Amino acid sequence: MSTPRPRAGIVVTGTEVLTGRVSDRNGPWLAEELRLIGVDVAQIVVVGDRPDDLHQALRSTVDSGADLVITSGGLGPTADDLTAQVVGDFQGRPSRLDPDLESTIAAVVERLSAGRGWRVDPEAMAAGTRKQAMVPEGAHVLAPIGTAPGLVVPPADGRSGPPVVVLPGPPRELQPMWSTAVTDPLVTTAFAHRSELQQRTLRLWGTPEAQLAATLRDHADLLDGLEITTCLRDGELEIVTRFGADAADRYDRFAEVIAADYPDTLFSSDGRTIDDVVADALLERGATIATAESCTAGLLAGRLTDRPGSSAYVLGGLIVYSNEAKQHLAGVPAEMLERVGAVSAEVAEALAAGAADRLRTDIGVGITGIAGPDGGSAEKPVGLVHFCVTGFGATLARRVHIPGSRFDVRKRAVVIALHLVRRLLAEQESPCSSTT
Amino acid sequence: MSTPRPRAGIVVTGTEVLTGRVSDRNGPWLAEELRLIGVDVAQIVVVGDRPDDLHQALRSTVDSGADLVITSGGLGPTADDLTAQVVGDFQGRPSRLDPDLESTIAAVVERLSAGRGWRVDPEAMAAGTRKQAMVPEGAHVLAPIGTAPGLVVPPADGRSGPPVVVLPGPPRELQPMWSTAVTDPLVTTAFAHRSELQQRTLRLWGTPEAQLAATLRDHADLLDGLEITTCLRDGELEIVTRFGADAADRYDRFAEVIAADYPDTLFSSDGRTIDDVVADALLERGATIATAESCTAGLLAGRLTDRPGSSAYVLGGLIVYSNEAKQHLAGVPAEMLERVGAVSAEVAEALAAGAADRLRTDIGVGITGIAGPDGGSAEKPVGLVHFCVTGFGATLARRVHIPGSRFDVRKRAVVIALHLVRRLLAEQESPCSSTT
Repeated sequence: MSTPRPRAGIVVTGTEVLTGRVSDRNGPWLAEELRLIGVDVAQIVVVGDRPDDLHQALRSTVDSGADLVITSGGLGPTADDLTAQVVGDFQGRPSRLDPDLESTIAAVVERLSAGRGWRVDPEAMAAGTRKQAMVPEGAHVLAPIGTAPGLVVPPADGRSGPPVVVLPGPPRELQPMWSTAVTDPLVTTAFAHRSELQQRTLRLWGTPEAQLAATLRDHADLLDGLEITTCLRDGELEIVTRFGADAADRYDRFAEVIAADYPDTLFSSDGRTIDDVVADALLERGATIATAESCTAGLLAGRLTDRPGSSAYVLGGLIVYSNEAKQHLAGVPAEMLERVGAVSAEVAEALAAGAADRLRTDIGVGITGIAGPDGGSAEKPVGLVHFCVTGFGATLARRVHIPGSRFDVRKRAVVIALHLVRRLLAEQESPCSSTT
Repeated sequence: MSTPRPRAGIVVTGTEVLTGRVSDRNGPWLAEELRLIGVDVAQIVVVGDRPDDLHQALRSTVDSGADLVITSGGLGPTADDLTAQVVGDFQGRPSRLDPDLESTIAAVVERLSAGRGWRVDPEAMAAGTRKQAMVPEGAHVLAPIGTAPGLVVPPADGRSGPPVVVLPGPPRELQPMWSTAVTDPLVTTAFAHRSELQQRTLRLWGTPEAQLAATLRDHADLLDGLEITTCLRDGELEIVTRFGADAADRYDRFAEVIAADYPDTLFSSDGRTIDDVVADALLERGATIATAESCTAGLLAGRLTDRPGSSAYVLGGLIVYSNEAKQHLAGVPAEMLERVGAVSAEVAEALAAGAADRLRTDIGVGITGIAGPDGGSAEKPVGLVHFCVTGFGATLARRVHIPGSRFDVRKRAVVIALHLVRRLLAEQESPCSSTT
């Protein structure tokens, strides 16, 4: 915290992002990349496709003291894609056609269109290509990954101000192009005085935020030089601490305090998410897992397989949305469904057992609940979800009433199931197993 | 476009959002709500939990000409939650303890803690409650949905500038509180000169953006008064048009031009997404559906069941990640897996048939592919996915090589499968069925 660090500002363009039709993945991704090279992000500004608003966003980002400005989006062939020209104007550098770049883009467009068998009007494509090959005078061109080139645009000679890095909107174009941009001399100069900043994350499950706030107040003397933020998300409490090299010892003492005060709820102190912890535990144990999901209908299996290599432990699963599917796929007795209803502890347990049995896995997970908004009753309200995780001779069951929308209930249910799998595997490390 | 519309600026706080650990749902949600009441959003600014950065973001939002500023987040009980105080300072209104509010929050906290059985230190909770009950002098309090109250904070008497609406970060607290905030006299005054703006969306599947750009240029004379943005997302091309009441006829003519030029690829002209179109087609036909997913491992079923009421057509599905699961759950012959491999047209077809057979549905969907990053070969590269949709005597099959990361491949595969289901159902409307 003692040396001033370089700061960057990020401007995300696109009416589709501003109105939420597309969620912005570039701002957060760039922020993380910048953090890793010791650059702070002052702000991320999202603006629509209007020249005045983009100009104003560039202005406010420069005013915030940014050493570098990065834009994403607005480099396509259509008229509403205007970032390159607005940035050129902002930096006092009018745009001109770059004929070499035009040929490069034309070749890419031709290859793409041929590969996809698209109906294409050559004149239309040429006009789009010409637009994408307009470059502000004196800007450095970053070679296109898709069809859009990126740019590094310094202020016009004699003007002061940070350079602007112009990147395309699609993440799979932006991300590799950024790794080229950071080696550009204009960018390395802007970040010349950078110094590494560390970040560590602690994650707790089942501790209220206010309780943690008290712990932080009690140990305020420990926290000098530590920049701590806490965040409650899907029921998990996340403590992220950033600090300079001089505060590393203080961080270690802080982490020890949290571990001592919250031995039961601290589940990660090395940055791993619950997904990482579960995957590592499954791999370590050499265990396999299968799911039988009613209200989450595949979301748990989908999340378990987000990670590359998950086929080592996920064998498959059953999506048992209807009662018939619960019977025929997972072997839940019709009599049980009749007697206690689909949303019940018995059915959750039968689903977990059925998943492990049908997929021949070590661990089975059963989830059944009422995601809503309809289908609730006084006895079984919307948000009620029964969980069961079974394996290695142990069984963990939970009945949770999750607040919020259908989306919230399904998402939170997946997180709870992951934590139950973690607990089942953690208990396997001790000699006895238990049922709760 | 003829009358100037009121503009709002949105400031999203939280280092966890700035660094991408939590994705911002509030900015886009508020932007959409504002659009519906005829208010433009100039920008969304995301800042971390530092007072100076928040102050600067408020300043730049006011400078952008906003008639109202809305903040989200930073109202929790911990010390890094500082929005209320910074906004009070920004508006020239120092904060004071509101004893009535303190009692209200204390009662909520007590109820929540009891319900969850959390270990709680009364003194710690009281300190958090006291912090959350600090209110800038003269601000209007919005009753808490969770524990955090919202605020409407006007500038200090004698100062000019827009009021600031302060809302909590969790979407299920922010959303109901916003509906209270819009009725606040300070807010209705700020939006007094609002006028309704319409928005319409057209969606195409399989038309390149540059081709559409040419159509827009060819019909430039039609487009006066229409604010058009185009966006390519997961292979779908989205055209969103905003316009005032005076341009409604021009929009209708524009929509007719697109329908005439792109009869094969236009799949929605009434704002419905592919999810809506598929759900409506299934309901209309009274058809049921089941999935057998390998590389997407439940993501298609999860998406089909995002919608309330989806149990009317989704009966269930099979997650067949391993070859054993493909055999035992979906009935894919071992001989076939041996002969052509799991990622093949034959296996996709067997999966589709197996899903429909096991779940006893009208339609079966099979997906098998290589999501990566490992497991590819020269013959079957990462991103290769085979699809099959079968039902009502027809079968549609596709072999697609999807570019991008594991995340991209899985997400795009789900979209492609939805479009194949749509096509299968659309062909049912004509007397003959086909295999492609």
